[in-house]
Amino acid sequence: MMDRSISVLARSDALARITETPGMITRTYLTAQHAEANRLVGGWMGEAGMRVCADAAGSVIGRYDGLRPDAPTVILGSHLDSVRNAGRYDGILGVLLGLAAVEHLHTAGRRLPFAIEVIGFGEEEGVRFGTSLIGSHALAGDFDPAWLDIRDEAGVSLAAAMTKFGLDPQAVGQAARRKGDILAYLEAHIEQGPVLESLNLPVGVVTAICGATRRRFRIKGMAGHAGTVPMGQRRDALAAAAEMVLAVERIAREKGVVGTVGRLAVEPDAVNVIPGAVTFTIDVRAEQDADRLDALAAIDRTFGEIAETRGLSWTGETFHQSPSVHCAPHLRALFAETIEAQGMPVHALPSGAGHDAMAIASLAPVAMLFIRCAGGISHNPAEAVLAEDVDLALRVLSDTLERLAATTGFGD
Amino acid sequence: MMDRSISVLARSDALARITETPGMITRTYLTAQHAEANRLVGGWMGEAGMRVCADAAGSVIGRYDGLRPDAPTVILGSHLDSVRNAGRYDGILGVLLGLAAVEHLHTAGRRLPFAIEVIGFGEEEGVRFGTSLIGSHALAGDFDPAWLDIRDEAGVSLAAAMTKFGLDPQAVGQAARRKGDILAYLEAHIEQGPVLESLNLPVGVVTAICGATRRRFRIKGMAGHAGTVPMGQRRDALAAAAEMVLAVERIAREKGVVGTVGRLAVEPDAVNVIPGAVTFTIDVRAEQDADRLDALAAIDRTFGEIAETRGLSWTGETFHQSPSVHCAPHLRALFAETIEAQGMPVHALPSGAGHDAMAIASLAPVAMLFIRCAGGISHNPAEAVLAEDVDLALRVLSDTLERLAATTGFGD
Repeated sequence: MMDRSISVLARSDALARITETPGMITRTYLTAQHAEANRLVGGWMGEAGMRVCADAAGSVIGRYDGLRPDAPTVILGSHLDSVRNAGRYDGILGVLLGLAAVEHLHTAGRRLPFAIEVIGFGEEEGVRFGTSLIGSHALAGDFDPAWLDIRDEAGVSLAAAMTKFGLDPQAVGQAARRKGDILAYLEAHIEQGPVLESLNLPVGVVTAICGATRRRFRIKGMAGHAGTVPMGQRRDALAAAAEMVLAVERIAREKGVVGTVGRLAVEPDAVNVIPGAVTFTIDVRAEQDADRLDALAAIDRTFGEIAETRGLSWTGETFHQSPSVHCAPHLRALFAETIEAQGMPVHALPSGAGHDAMAIASLAPVAMLFIRCAGGISHNPAEAVLAEDVDLALRVLSDTLERLAATTGFGD
Repeated sequence: MMDRSISVLARSDALARITETPGMITRTYLTAQHAEANRLVGGWMGEAGMRVCADAAGSVIGRYDGLRPDAPTVILGSHLDSVRNAGRYDGILGVLLGLAAVEHLHTAGRRLPFAIEVIGFGEEEGVRFGTSLIGSHALAGDFDPAWLDIRDEAGVSLAAAMTKFGLDPQAVGQAARRKGDILAYLEAHIEQGPVLESLNLPVGVVTAICGATRRRFRIKGMAGHAGTVPMGQRRDALAAAAEMVLAVERIAREKGVVGTVGRLAVEPDAVNVIPGAVTFTIDVRAEQDADRLDALAAIDRTFGEIAETRGLSWTGETFHQSPSVHCAPHLRALFAETIEAQGMPVHALPSGAGHDAMAIASLAPVAMLFIRCAGGISHNPAEAVLAEDVDLALRVLSDTLERLAATTGFGD
């Protein structure tokens, strides 16, 4: 099977050459590069025996019919868009592994009872319009028409970009699939974290996509001359924020969640002025929503204590909140069985990153297979995977389809 | 004497109307506003019986001759330039108090044995060319010709700005006074800090202008996905920097110095990315250089421990270093006597801010009198002083001149 993983990697390389920015990989929604990627992947889908179309949101879809027309469809998907200066596997790998799994059936002249669709979503990262998961939300029937008015940095609205791409912005709703028509959504994806690598494991089964809360805090102290205000008379907003940054780290550890202060800005940001105000964000994620909310409450409580002790004021506002999405236990179990059948230990882990599966979960049972990536690095040209891991993931995916066929009553 | 303080305050108001930026006070070196301020102050100097000139660096100087031509001169001075969006007393008050002290002698038809010069330096703040204390350095003979090539934000060199102002950039050295020709330099200045206000004292005697070290640090960790990297596998540069910010605060308190992290920047500064690098500055000041160096060593040692514990790398570079300048004990004692003679407690305190006296110290014995300012606020339109404090400062300054005359052997 090694030749199949080589073809997956070669196709990743070919897709990486389709970019808006020479010298790096950047492929955003509804651009000429998006159309080119759809054509390239669509061509491969066609060669693999699939009927190919783009849906009303610009996602490329290849359909490999099943033996039983009444059976619901299994979707194998991920996204083809990228962040700016991206790697070549985030999203891509899930689409190409789905494609390779179908290709394997096609080459063998076999069909499963259910149809398999491979989907390359055109929008997951949210780079161009600031709204992520547009492709998968559209498929799940959750496209919000208000998004049509959002403009990219060049001032082009989503509606105008769709029209230019050849889509009808008023018809995006037609991308929606009916609940019950989809048997399962399976997404393979690089882990984007260091866990599998640190355990020396090629793949892992995702338990859930973590819920996330993002809050913005503003700490107001008193600016002052760095030379003339004695230490005991200061209300230094940065010193308070520093205590808060460490509190987020400590509480995240205690509560078993991940917590990050990713942005922080100091005012007035002058070498000889005691900071008068600091603005920073926190990002807290957890597999269990209760743990996340518990951590957030502890953070707010601790921030309040720090501010009171130092005589500062503070405000916090939530600007993003998403509950966790749990993968379907029966699909997780199938992934686990197939991994074991390959002679590998099964490691279950949550996904701290968002994925298309998160949006599809409102439409169908979802499951995700994580593939080890070098150094846990993603969203970076240094993204890398091992050919043998890709090969294993492909065998797991193919076997999972077979077992799904066997266990769901469409097996024979 | 209350009418004299009123005239000092009214003159501050008149100078505040000379500004480059309507609606706020901004008066930088070698501008039309600098020339206008020199003319206005020069006019007042002339009315107070002084001969007026501008020196080769553009400082306005009024000379009130003494009875004994062989006696060295006493200088009363400070600066007439301002930061952007400044208050109306920083610098100004020292010039106007000197002027009022001479005016008092002139009105009484009296002269002291020594000549008194009142100097309004045109450059102290360093706003326009990034180099501060140009006026006082020139007077002390420490003007560096290399400064002539420095350009302001509009690309105008210091040399070109001098020429336009009517000065000869090749002749700035002529502003230098001879050592031994200056008996004392006395500078009154708003405190720019909250100490006198918190002690409910109108004035204080400066012990020294603190030495200062400014260092820039760069902490390098490992950027990563805020959702996918477990807390235990992070090398978060901001969390390390937060520990360092708190270490600077703690060490400053322990060592009796002031320490400030005024600037801090996070990379990549994205809400969902673990900070990979942080750059920040520290500003450490102390009356005793040994205390400052001791604190700096403790800071470096602690930073090293924090970085090692967290597995991060760090670099630090010093970009500013100035030793402390101690005020002359005999002049401090005179200020103290005169304050006591006014029935006020004497409070001695260091100056955390830099002043012209710092540059003049290489030429002559210097002393400074601090005047309480509201809330310790300076470099801000909210700068405020009490008329009664200005009045007291004026009496202290006048009396100090009399006592200086009496104690230096030129008294009669």
